[in-house]
Amino acid sequence: MTRYAVIMAGGSGERFWPWSRSHLPKQFLNLLGESSLLQQSYERIESLFDPQHILVVTGKEHAALAREQLSNLPQGNLIIEPQGRNTAPCIGLAAMHIRKRDPDATMLVFPADHLVQGRAEFIRCLEKGLQLASTAEVLVTIGIMPTRPETGYGYIEREKTAFPGTPLTFKVRQFVEKPSANIALEYLRAGRYFWNSGIFVWQTDLILNKIEKLLPELHSGLTAIDRHIGADGEQEAMARIFPSLPSISIDHGIMEKSPEILVVQGDFGWDDLGSWAALAACFPKDQHKNVVRGEYVGIDTTNCLVYGQDLLIATLGVQNLVIVQAGNAVLVCSQERSQDIKKLVQSLRDQELDKCL
Amino acid sequence: MTRYAVIMAGGSGERFWPWSRSHLPKQFLNLLGESSLLQQSYERIESLFDPQHILVVTGKEHAALAREQLSNLPQGNLIIEPQGRNTAPCIGLAAMHIRKRDPDATMLVFPADHLVQGRAEFIRCLEKGLQLASTAEVLVTIGIMPTRPETGYGYIEREKTAFPGTPLTFKVRQFVEKPSANIALEYLRAGRYFWNSGIFVWQTDLILNKIEKLLPELHSGLTAIDRHIGADGEQEAMARIFPSLPSISIDHGIMEKSPEILVVQGDFGWDDLGSWAALAACFPKDQHKNVVRGEYVGIDTTNCLVYGQDLLIATLGVQNLVIVQAGNAVLVCSQERSQDIKKLVQSLRDQELDKCL
Repeated sequence: MTRYAVIMAGGSGERFWPWSRSHLPKQFLNLLGESSLLQQSYERIESLFDPQHILVVTGKEHAALAREQLSNLPQGNLIIEPQGRNTAPCIGLAAMHIRKRDPDATMLVFPADHLVQGRAEFIRCLEKGLQLASTAEVLVTIGIMPTRPETGYGYIEREKTAFPGTPLTFKVRQFVEKPSANIALEYLRAGRYFWNSGIFVWQTDLILNKIEKLLPELHSGLTAIDRHIGADGEQEAMARIFPSLPSISIDHGIMEKSPEILVVQGDFGWDDLGSWAALAACFPKDQHKNVVRGEYVGIDTTNCLVYGQDLLIATLGVQNLVIVQAGNAVLVCSQERSQDIKKLVQSLRDQELDKCL
Repeated sequence: MTRYAVIMAGGSGERFWPWSRSHLPKQFLNLLGESSLLQQSYERIESLFDPQHILVVTGKEHAALAREQLSNLPQGNLIIEPQGRNTAPCIGLAAMHIRKRDPDATMLVFPADHLVQGRAEFIRCLEKGLQLASTAEVLVTIGIMPTRPETGYGYIEREKTAFPGTPLTFKVRQFVEKPSANIALEYLRAGRYFWNSGIFVWQTDLILNKIEKLLPELHSGLTAIDRHIGADGEQEAMARIFPSLPSISIDHGIMEKSPEILVVQGDFGWDDLGSWAALAACFPKDQHKNVVRGEYVGIDTTNCLVYGQDLLIATLGVQNLVIVQAGNAVLVCSQERSQDIKKLVQSLRDQELDKCL
């Protein structure tokens, strides 16, 4: 059974403003080191998949950037959404493309913009998920062993005992929403809750059948597009039909409503990098608990994330801040408020400061 | 008796880094409005002095800038110090220049980089000081009525009762150093203490006699320079002699050691603008107590001074900060530490980041 990988590289990436901009979302930034999150996502799975079997989905504004960053990606393997419609249409569309190439394929789907520190363990989990999904008619997801009572993630509750014959793999009891701080602590202590990583593995046919059953409107739209895939009218059909598809996540539309799901336990230093503070947590701190990139001088400064892209940053007597200069803007934000940066971006939009978006 | 004004425009201006730079000290910045502090200082006294009788003293690195900013200043009225040697040599040199032009002149001396909000009251005080000094052999200074228990200024203690015949003018009991917070509060409550403004008025002959008596080494150096003033060898003599003059303030060298000084009470919204926080205090605040200049968006931000020279500044969830982008640097500093910015500048020097100095 052929294996395909689908890297979801959509998303507007407002959370890393001012580094991320509408023309340069998070997945295209070198947030971790010298290559972009998308490039790292691609390289991470190259050992598991034939290059012909890696597909990348992104928005039309970012297609050129994706091509530029992924020079190894085969020409026809970039799927371009005319408009972001959340993960269910994205995954359904990718499944249609794959089924056209190979009716019996198994597909891995995952977001381009996450942190994965333990590549070998990550590959082991994917391998396990791919084997399970290719041999059984079952939806498989990777659940991350929580390391803190995180309130920013959805959780997956597993059954108490492992699935027969497959250690560290469990039946899913339920998907649960982002919890309060107290509930998150309970989940951490209970030991039966994983973070929902957004990494899924299944047979292409199976996910399309699920979509047909649970999201019939989406399925009929995808079917209408499917007729044009690989033909002259594909782009026109996409532009006409895709934006009208229901905008819904695969979690809400399929996973939460499906009775039989397996979760593979993953423990590979994962983070969805949802904020500057989350990014700061991924880096080693200096002796004053600061994370610094770019030219910097500081006095009596602790627990700050400092990034100056072009300009020198100097700090004196400050704590717990995110300070970022990128392009034509400077952000100064308290660490604990860094998840609200989208409000600032909205503010820029309201004030029509488009040059800073 | 002819009146001369001497505007002291020396000083390196590190306190307003990153806006102030070694090539652009504080007195040349438009800190308050659309013209520089030097320009405002010049314009403020134009009504009192003939343009031929206004002299400006500055360092050789800043002579071109001073000429550019003061287009009305007569060509020969810019006195250039080859090196800053504090106020006593500066004032002594200016006095030599004035005596050469007019042996009987009265001179006003004041720094170029202070805030004066009440121009009319300022002029009234200067007028009073000029009249006193021109008719009596006495050193005169302007003392500022304190409005808060400031620990950053030197103080002048006055006698209890006014000098006969001159209301709001007193004999000086003593000059006192910058006080502790408790002492500053005592001074404020006592009602007999003024802030030392660094504004002085006296006859040229009198101050040169004082220098001869109290700072003989300075006097002999100045006398050696005096021989060349207006002659071909002036620049060479200045370069050779001036840097060797004792570096001492007029306060320490003369005022504190002179028995007979008069102080004219001034109450004209004065500040020496010693820090970003002091500057912030001079501007009206918005509804969140912020002072903002340049493009800005902010959410949940209070009591901040924000200045973006070229870049937009965005803040989220921060308080009591000074945030300044100017040229190739960004400063983020707690308001209460803004008097320590010179330490940051020293840090830049230590790290040889000359492009940011």
